[in-house]
Amino acid sequence: MSEESLLKAFGQNICQLRKELKLSQEQLAERAQLDRTYVSSVERGQRNISLLNICKLAAALDVLPGSLLANLGDFYEQ
Amino acid sequence: MSEESLLKAFGQNICQLRKELKLSQEQLAERAQLDRTYVSSVERGQRNISLLNICKLAAALDVLPGSLLANLGDFYEQ
Repeated sequence: MSEESLLKAFGQNICQLRKELKLSQEQLAERAQLDRTYVSSVERGQRNISLLNICKLAAALDVLPGSLLANLGDFYEQ
Repeated sequence: MSEESLLKAFGQNICQLRKELKLSQEQLAERAQLDRTYVSSVERGQRNISLLNICKLAAALDVLPGSLLANLGDFYEQ
């Protein structure tokens, strides 16, 4: 399993959705009640984010949590 | 946000899928390359599981990672 590329893909999902909502990282972090530097490191694929933080970001981006993992199956070799 | 109920719902998703495949926790843990006691605590909603472990369990259960979070949006009050 390419863990690095999986975390990067997740981070890109967050970044793309954030930009679609025209939010800064600061604004997203505030909505999600997370730290801005944490959000920045998640977007850069440097965090093995927890389920609860995935759900906080999903709520802040107004999407269902599962949708943030939509394309992650491709990175996973059995 | 009811964090406890969210983690419990995720755990029930794992447990249900595992039983549908007629796998023991031991067999699922082995497939996912995780510890059996860890899988047990995830199923009981006692773990704020990480993204990489969500993907390992999804691959072991032969489902897409996002599907394990399918019903978690309901637990999340904005």
